[in-house]
Amino acid sequence: MPRRRGPTDQGLRTRQTILRRAAELASVEGLEGLSIGALADDLGFSKSGLFAHFGSKEELQLATIDAAREVYVQEVIAPALAAGKGLTRLCALCELFLSYVARQVFPGGCFFASAMAEFDCKPGPIKDKIAEIQAAWMETLRRAGASAVDAGELGPHTDPEQLAFELEAALLAANWYFHLFDDRSYMARAADAIRLRLSADATKRGRATLATRSTDTTAVTT
Amino acid sequence: MPRRRGPTDQGLRTRQTILRRAAELASVEGLEGLSIGALADDLGFSKSGLFAHFGSKEELQLATIDAAREVYVQEVIAPALAAGKGLTRLCALCELFLSYVARQVFPGGCFFASAMAEFDCKPGPIKDKIAEIQAAWMETLRRAGASAVDAGELGPHTDPEQLAFELEAALLAANWYFHLFDDRSYMARAADAIRLRLSADATKRGRATLATRSTDTTAVTT
Repeated sequence: MPRRRGPTDQGLRTRQTILRRAAELASVEGLEGLSIGALADDLGFSKSGLFAHFGSKEELQLATIDAAREVYVQEVIAPALAAGKGLTRLCALCELFLSYVARQVFPGGCFFASAMAEFDCKPGPIKDKIAEIQAAWMETLRRAGASAVDAGELGPHTDPEQLAFELEAALLAANWYFHLFDDRSYMARAADAIRLRLSADATKRGRATLATRSTDTTAVTT
Repeated sequence: MPRRRGPTDQGLRTRQTILRRAAELASVEGLEGLSIGALADDLGFSKSGLFAHFGSKEELQLATIDAAREVYVQEVIAPALAAGKGLTRLCALCELFLSYVARQVFPGGCFFASAMAEFDCKPGPIKDKIAEIQAAWMETLRRAGASAVDAGELGPHTDPEQLAFELEAALLAANWYFHLFDDRSYMARAADAIRLRLSADATKRGRATLATRSTDTTAVTT
């Protein structure tokens, strides 16, 4: 017999629906483009109902970022952590990011790339939150690289922080140019850049790992 | 005896002042954040006076992009073309971009990186104009890479289009992370990434060219 849902469950689901839509809109129009009124119209909710959930625009923006982070964890981070360790994880993080952009999980591309570009020069709680999330993402890439060095898949001279920066650079550029030129080949360019960059530092063991990933890379970007 | 300035000269200078300020504001607040009213307030001009220059917000946005392009040509493109050909030009383009970001020629970072991020998913004349400018920039990088191959500075297996994408990726990532984390070390990360990427494809002649550039790279990023 199914458990009866209380009003709290219902409220949470409504909140989730609102925030998921807010994140979709913000990926195209920007977080500053979000308004409680426009979101209420879009969802067919009353404006006062939405105000009951979010007291201010900033509260809505911060909650939207949290909701987008949950999507990102579900689409990119969690499956990459489950895929394996070291170089396998590092490849999976990159492949899953490109897949998440190519599948247009958010219609405006990577939510966090958009948010970072919008708020990189606007001090305040929104910028702080985005900086914290981007730092965590870079740290996830760095750790996977460091563990690939520890496992002997990347050579000892590899600088995991520099490597994380370079991989992130290719991923972000793919996100922008795919949308600006409406050209999916930028996904393959990023995948090629990443594969070459990793190959340059890979040991024999690392090259064996990379060989098992090449099919996956093609799969997610076409 | 100095030439008497007609009203046309005066009008042109006023227009330039307006658009330069508009580009500065847009690099922080976005092109959608521009308004004729707010710009008039900021400059101490009358709103009706500004309307005489620009009939609509979109006209102001398009004129602002043109003004920003002039700045970009002056700060990055022209001195790089004057620096030399082939690999020298390619290095100069990258160094001058990093310098233009580090010197905060626009307070919000690269005007075009911001504009691309804002309009990459918003079809219309603004997106078209930004796409055209970004395509021209990528073509400038590609041509310099191709001429470095022709000059025997980069090996014959170099793909100049892929190389342009990878260099642009490092430059864009430096722009975002420098501002997001208020951390100038991202400039050095990008310069390192670019130097390593070019070294990987460089011939003996190319390595000699790169050796002459290393001081410049440090100079522009510190």
